[in-house]
Amino acid sequence: MSDQRERLCDLLRRFYDNGWISGTGGGICALEAPGRLLLAPTSVHKELVRPEDFFVVDVESGRVLEAPPNERLRPSECGDIFRSVIKLRRAGSVVHSHALSAVLACDLTRDDALAISSLEMLKGLPGVTNTDTHLVPVVPNTPREPELVGSVDRLLSDERFGASYAIGVRDHGAYIWGADVWEAKKHAEVYHFLFEAVVARGGSS
Amino acid sequence: MSDQRERLCDLLRRFYDNGWISGTGGGICALEAPGRLLLAPTSVHKELVRPEDFFVVDVESGRVLEAPPNERLRPSECGDIFRSVIKLRRAGSVVHSHALSAVLACDLTRDDALAISSLEMLKGLPGVTNTDTHLVPVVPNTPREPELVGSVDRLLSDERFGASYAIGVRDHGAYIWGADVWEAKKHAEVYHFLFEAVVARGGSS
Amino acid sequence: MSDQRERLCDLLRRFYDNGWISGTGGGICALEAPGRLLLAPTSVHKELVRPEDFFVVDVESGRVLEAPPNERLRPSECGDIFRSVIKLRRAGSVVHSHALSAVLACDLTRDDALAISSLEMLKGLPGVTNTDTHLVPVVPNTPREPELVGSVDRLLSDERFGASYAIGVRDHGAYIWGADVWEAKKHAEVYHFLFEAVVARGGSS
Amino acid sequence: MSDQRERLCDLLRRFYDNGWISGTGGGICALEAPGRLLLAPTSVHKELVRPEDFFVVDVESGRVLEAPPNERLRPSECGDIFRSVIKLRRAGSVVHSHALSAVLACDLTRDDALAISSLEMLKGLPGVTNTDTHLVPVVPNTPREPELVGSVDRLLSDERFGASYAIGVRDHGAYIWGADVWEAKKHAEVYHFLFEAVVARGGSS
Repeated sequence: MSDQRERLCDLLRRFYDNGWISGTGGGICALEAPGRLLLAPTSVHKELVRPEDFFVVDVESGRVLEAPPNERLRPSECGDIFRSVIKLRRAGSVVHSHALSAVLACDLTRDDALAISSLEMLKGLPGVTNTDTHLVPVVPNTPREPELVGSVDRLLSDERFGASYAIGVRDHGAYIWGADVWEAKKHAEVYHFLFEAVVARGGSS
Repeated sequence: MSDQRERLCDLLRRFYDNGWISGTGGGICALEAPGRLLLAPTSVHKELVRPEDFFVVDVESGRVLEAPPNERLRPSECGDIFRSVIKLRRAGSVVHSHALSAVLACDLTRDDALAISSLEMLKGLPGVTNTDTHLVPVVPNTPREPELVGSVDRLLSDERFGASYAIGVRDHGAYIWGADVWEAKKHAEVYHFLFEAVVARGGSS
Repeated sequence: MSDQRERLCDLLRRFYDNGWISGTGGGICALEAPGRLLLAPTSVHKELVRPEDFFVVDVESGRVLEAPPNERLRPSECGDIFRSVIKLRRAGSVVHSHALSAVLACDLTRDDALAISSLEMLKGLPGVTNTDTHLVPVVPNTPREPELVGSVDRLLSDERFGASYAIGVRDHGAYIWGADVWEAKKHAEVYHFLFEAVVARGGSS
Repeated sequence: MSDQRERLCDLLRRFYDNGWISGTGGGICALEAPGRLLLAPTSVHKELVRPEDFFVVDVESGRVLEAPPNERLRPSECGDIFRSVIKLRRAGSVVHSHALSAVLACDLTRDDALAISSLEMLKGLPGVTNTDTHLVPVVPNTPREPELVGSVDRLLSDERFGASYAIGVRDHGAYIWGADVWEAKKHAEVYHFLFEAVVARGGSS
């Protein structure tokens, strides 16, 4: 099994310990090679996913190139959104969080944007400074995850959100990405801190 | 020792780490075979329970079929409620949580039902969607756990709560179940997230 | 080294992980034999205490019977209060917690008693039921711990607090005890849950 | 590798688990010998730093005396502030925390000082008692960390703050120090408790 797969399993265990992917929720993906996406299975206890449990999916078409040996596994419902983020933002890895802090941060705005400012942690995002007002797009939730793709695509193409490495999904959580697995881990930690901070401060600041 | 017993011990350690069964409180059970229920002992530090410490109880009669080698152990007081849930809901495993979030969630309603809505995590329950208003039955606490059985049975048979996999006990905690140990773990994580979310949002939403 | 010493070290590590004894604060003791008290050292990182680091102290006189090989260690300042609790309450083990929840719970009353009710967790204390209003004595803090002994002794002898296995110290923390190390662990978990519950509920209930 | 380097890595893992240095933020340093400062690298996942990853920096000049074998590593941006603290306060080790509690504690004052009182935990600081009103200096944040040096130096020389072992940085975190690594660990735990306490109490008390 590749190091990349081990790393993804390690991150799933960490994120589970943080309470970001409980109840079999959440997910993760990363490019194994250009065009080939490692995708975690759906509806399983994410902290127990093993390296051989990942699907390999074609980034362009979404077609499953390789399925895991365990035939009961099905690919994550996040697959379409993951591929959108990878194509529109040149991401190499995307995390889907079900953290309560992400839900509560989205509650702070009725708009399609969460504004975050006055926090050093903003500097954990490429090109963002602690004097910026950083805008995170927020999409309404939908009954099924593939139905989110339209609104996700529209906001990812919205120039207001050019500096964002995350999309909040109201009542649901967030998608957070980076150029590779390590940057996705960093950005996941940065955004969860930012979500907790704006919630503790009682409003988008 | 069976894998099932090891799994229950593993869950007890996880739940203890989550603060759901501190102070020797809480409990767990699971069917070992049809009609044969593995039941944790009462009044012991639950995170230290070993595979050989479980009782085997007859689901119909509640009679102890096999006692653990440690003669000081007594079967959990939750036994009667566990058997009710298994019989009335065809559950294969039931968790009894003493989490503060369960207590605080029950505080939010004066009624016999806690309404939960607008949360993606609801989809972690079979047949429930994120657009539903999910009703969790809430029973008043009683001085001794077997005395809860009457009100638990009545609410488990109430059609308003047909979609629920949990019962809240006011000032006390919750019973949460699933078709097997893995689903009980999943539902326990789902409901604790839901409890934390409605408490953080300041009311049953 | 005796099992008792290992057990105390294990509890110190657990309590540290819970945030109850950070910053070298807090402490623990337990009877090794009648009249002989194992006492943790002061001013050290409590999670790093080893079995050989304990003092053996005479319960009646407070005299050090055996000192640890590490000559820089000094016995805990809690020694006098620990001995009071052991003598007046027939305790076998006492925990001194610096948990924030204990401080915030004491903040809820201006009186010398914190009233706790409507919580199943009360049944984790011998003779207490969930329908009782349980009174925990609260003493004002003093510049040095031995100066607390007078007020601690007076409240331990106050019949209002006959059912209590803890004393809160305002702005400081709590002393919690049990008949042996296992019961002290249980009662520590019970009281910290109770403290967190009354703080979350916004007042002594 | 020296014990000192192992100890610093161990503290980084602990602080990461506490949420004090997430998202590659925060940092640590300690004197290896008089005038020679071990300095963690910048922009890396701090919990994964290994003993060989530290820089050795000249305390007086800030010049890198030894670089780690991994040529992609760069020394922490905190270096100048760390050296100021070491020179002006005779510290042997300095921790830079990005904890949310530090940010929220600084939010409580509009002034250049956070006042903390009525907490036993104050006695974890040399020469401070639980009856003192302890003043922690608070500096405004700046776009780049080296730009903080001027205001840090000024407040470190301000006699109002002679008893403080920490500086808060608004919207950012805190620098916390001690005579050696063990005291820096102790003071880091003490100050984070103090920050959490004043935030929970709803104001600088």
